[in-house]
Amino acid sequence: MKVAVVGATGAVGETLLRVLEERNVPVSELGAFASRDRDRPIRFRGGNVAVRAATPAALEGYDAVMFASSDDASAELAEGCARAGAVVIDNSSTFRERDGVPLVVPEVNADAIGPEHRIFPVANCTAIVLVMGLAPIVRTAGLKSVRVATYQAASGAGRAGLEELEAGERAVQSGAAEPPPKTFVAPLARNVIPQIGAFDEAGDSVEERKVAFETRKILGLPGLHVAATTVRVPVRTAHSIVAFFETERDTTVAELARAYDGAAGVVFHQHGIVTPREVEGGDDVHVARLRPEAGSSRHFQVWISGDQLRKGAATNGVQILELLAARNLVGAGRKTVASA
Amino acid sequence: MKVAVVGATGAVGETLLRVLEERNVPVSELGAFASRDRDRPIRFRGGNVAVRAATPAALEGYDAVMFASSDDASAELAEGCARAGAVVIDNSSTFRERDGVPLVVPEVNADAIGPEHRIFPVANCTAIVLVMGLAPIVRTAGLKSVRVATYQAASGAGRAGLEELEAGERAVQSGAAEPPPKTFVAPLARNVIPQIGAFDEAGDSVEERKVAFETRKILGLPGLHVAATTVRVPVRTAHSIVAFFETERDTTVAELARAYDGAAGVVFHQHGIVTPREVEGGDDVHVARLRPEAGSSRHFQVWISGDQLRKGAATNGVQILELLAARNLVGAGRKTVASA
Repeated sequence: MKVAVVGATGAVGETLLRVLEERNVPVSELGAFASRDRDRPIRFRGGNVAVRAATPAALEGYDAVMFASSDDASAELAEGCARAGAVVIDNSSTFRERDGVPLVVPEVNADAIGPEHRIFPVANCTAIVLVMGLAPIVRTAGLKSVRVATYQAASGAGRAGLEELEAGERAVQSGAAEPPPKTFVAPLARNVIPQIGAFDEAGDSVEERKVAFETRKILGLPGLHVAATTVRVPVRTAHSIVAFFETERDTTVAELARAYDGAAGVVFHQHGIVTPREVEGGDDVHVARLRPEAGSSRHFQVWISGDQLRKGAATNGVQILELLAARNLVGAGRKTVASA
Repeated sequence: MKVAVVGATGAVGETLLRVLEERNVPVSELGAFASRDRDRPIRFRGGNVAVRAATPAALEGYDAVMFASSDDASAELAEGCARAGAVVIDNSSTFRERDGVPLVVPEVNADAIGPEHRIFPVANCTAIVLVMGLAPIVRTAGLKSVRVATYQAASGAGRAGLEELEAGERAVQSGAAEPPPKTFVAPLARNVIPQIGAFDEAGDSVEERKVAFETRKILGLPGLHVAATTVRVPVRTAHSIVAFFETERDTTVAELARAYDGAAGVVFHQHGIVTPREVEGGDDVHVARLRPEAGSSRHFQVWISGDQLRKGAATNGVQILELLAARNLVGAGRKTVASA
């Protein structure tokens, strides 16, 4: 497969390259594109890759185009790539809410992919980590409501977020004047920030609306009650979530634990805890602290943690590409276009 | 009043001294006691105070003894002080669950104080911040259930917690080997830790049990459903809480906002956010992000933040002392003892 990565110099783009390498995805040609930092060295399978500006012409001829850039870049370029016959795997939020566009977390809803689909948005990183932790519950006892409070890493705001956290940490350590926040709405070092994105009239943030909408869409539960407060914390790349959930049917910790133990991509911690620093760099979503609320058989709480650059973004995108390749859906569109 | 502070060199003890100064509490004699760090200089109203070992004999003759030390010190010494006629204000968890012992947050349940009481535990810092944010709701619309996820500062584990966070921050900054965690169960720098205290058989931590029990006791709602996941975050001294709550009666954000605006000790942020770093050093508990869950008139969520060394510990203790003094209950016990 000829694969293009748009946004190759960003935090997700760089992780995409590493995941493509690690999983031995059969990439016959890799194109690296970015709107900035094009002098940043890009390595792929031992060689250097030149980074070019992403234009419709430059993106022609690829079997798969993976976007890890801004919403603007995806809005401008993705549909053209799809029309030209490529499958598009898009880490932006541009297409996630569109009817007829599947929002795929392979362990959860691989069956949402049809041969007619060309654009595959990768869901919001918090929604991915959350549904990985909820899907085994849905399959076992149904799910009526979920309330989540999040602990979201700096890398959710990309390389700029990581750099802003590090600059703040250096300043509070040295006692120097702290640079004013730009990526985040408040200083993140030694702080937590209960706002990710702008607020709507009801008082929910962009991130909270994404989590609610996308969780319902991926789980295929349009009536699921979701309430979320999303909070940035001074952690590097793994998101964590406290989830309070209500099942449709009576169940037990033992039954839910068995469901987690059998769930692909999930590491279940029956005892003890897991912290985001331990989870960083891995592809699994970790689940711990599963327990009933005051002995209830319907209400439970749980702790979920996963690397947002990996399973929350790059790994999930590469898994979608692998699924499409296994079903001979990569290149299929190009042939159709060519024969049309 | 002759006032003794036990644990005067600790994080809460030092804050107690500052709060006694700031509020101009009429302290005619201050005794400073500690089991360690007795060479740490203690300043009070411009003078140095020698720090002594706390023994029953050394603590005799004080009108009020404020414990800001270990559970062990309180268990060993507090009842003796009370029998000797002092009022005891105790920051440990030793007496909080005892029947007949009031657990007082002055803005919430000052009426729990009776003339027969001599020992006044200061509630768990998270419980104090939480009930300050819940009491206006209880008064307005009743409260049926609350689910909380917390973002708790390092100082909740005292000076040792603050020092462990700082040492970890220095190590991750410099790339040096990180000291193994001792106060916390995992490294706290660039991390969050979903465990505060040991787990019981049901899977709840000591901190979570305290929050549930004490919230019910302070609010006077023994049947209140409380579920909590308590999490340590790399913040210095302010605890924050995401609370999902259900009221007994239909209400609105506007009605609850009015209740918050009229609540002593609460700063309500109708718009925007507040972060723990902004709250640190102050006595108020801040409330923000109040909103309904999906348009509900019974289910809401809210963000609450307060300095755990101040309102969560020292300030609340000094407020209790002020209340007792205003009601002529300080020294009353001593007279009774003397005349007996």
